[in-house]
Amino acid sequence: MADSSSLDALVEALRRLPGVGAKSASRMAFHLLQHDREGTLMLARALQQAASNVRHCERCNTFTEGQVCSVCQDARRDGTKLCVVETPADQAALERTGVFRGYYFVLMGKLSPLDGVGPNDIGLAKLFARALDGTVSEVILATNFTAEGEATAHVIGDALKQRGLSVTRLARGVPAGSELEYVDLGTIAHALVDRR
Amino acid sequence: MADSSSLDALVEALRRLPGVGAKSASRMAFHLLQHDREGTLMLARALQQAASNVRHCERCNTFTEGQVCSVCQDARRDGTKLCVVETPADQAALERTGVFRGYYFVLMGKLSPLDGVGPNDIGLAKLFARALDGTVSEVILATNFTAEGEATAHVIGDALKQRGLSVTRLARGVPAGSELEYVDLGTIAHALVDRR
Ligand SMILES: [Zn+2]
Ligand SMILES: [Zn+2]
Repeated sequence: MADSSSLDALVEALRRLPGVGAKSASRMAFHLLQHDREGTLMLARALQQAASNVRHCERCNTFTEGQVCSVCQDARRDGTKLCVVETPADQAALERTGVFRGYYFVLMGKLSPLDGVGPNDIGLAKLFARALDGTVSEVILATNFTAEGEATAHVIGDALKQRGLSVTRLARGVPAGSELEYVDLGTIAHALVDRR
Repeated sequence: MADSSSLDALVEALRRLPGVGAKSASRMAFHLLQHDREGTLMLARALQQAASNVRHCERCNTFTEGQVCSVCQDARRDGTKLCVVETPADQAALERTGVFRGYYFVLMGKLSPLDGVGPNDIGLAKLFARALDGTVSEVILATNFTAEGEATAHVIGDALKQRGLSVTRLARGVPAGSELEYVDLGTIAHALVDRR
């Protein structure tokens, strides 16, 4: 963009962010260096802190900074119910309904054969070990109602039924083709109650 | 998003980027931590490097790492012509036409009274000192053909004409309402030749 290899390197690094092309990256770099040097250093520090502190919960696989996240540490929850979601944002959407009081497993992705994302890439072995702890009796599949989310639910559901667990799916009160994160709370709450 | 204050801080820092809202920031943080830890650290380093290395050229005000940028150091250029642009990206668009062989001054912004951006905020004093170096005889105003770019050109043009300089504007071959960065090279080249 200008006479600076540091600036070029910054634009290249910003392009690694999802949804950021060459023009957006240039505009971001210009904004940071021209108008927000404080924000530039703040973002640099936040990235480093997150990269060194954020790990996966040993039980539910979500992002956390300890060995086990606060939800998994909450002993008042119902250990017989395990809800499987794709991302922390989906888990947060379910939590906001206040309807579900069991535990979660966060896949941190979904099966996506076309993109080369198979069972090993989304930690299904870790899920199966968690679901077969002897306490869980019902696994609620709350993956998104997209083609990939449905396929993921299908694969997980088949495997867990074979191992003797009761497997349910969020009721199709959730509009088909949508992503949980963007669905209103009432619809999600209703779908939880009507799970089948 | 999840059980991590480092993650929350990262999402907040990403929201300072232009055009990035809460949802985008969450998705970016998720992508970086789940799929691109290497990119996370690369971006952190690039931000720090740019923040400490990038400064403004003493002559033309663009981003550079030395005192004077490579364009200003190029002695083969025509010192009688000075082209005023809003941003380094606009300068790059003009350079790609190969038509202009004078020097530049980069405002790093534009007058925008509604946003509280006045003459002191875009370094007009630095421009006037540069334009009145005794060698410059023609100042070509190549600010964008938006309302703010036109107003900026008007203010600069009036001031420099009063100081005895010849002032021209890119010909209106450039479609009104558009930004230089997105205009095709032929149109920009034509507008340079037809400057008035
Ligand atoms: Zn957990
Ligand atoms: Zn320069």
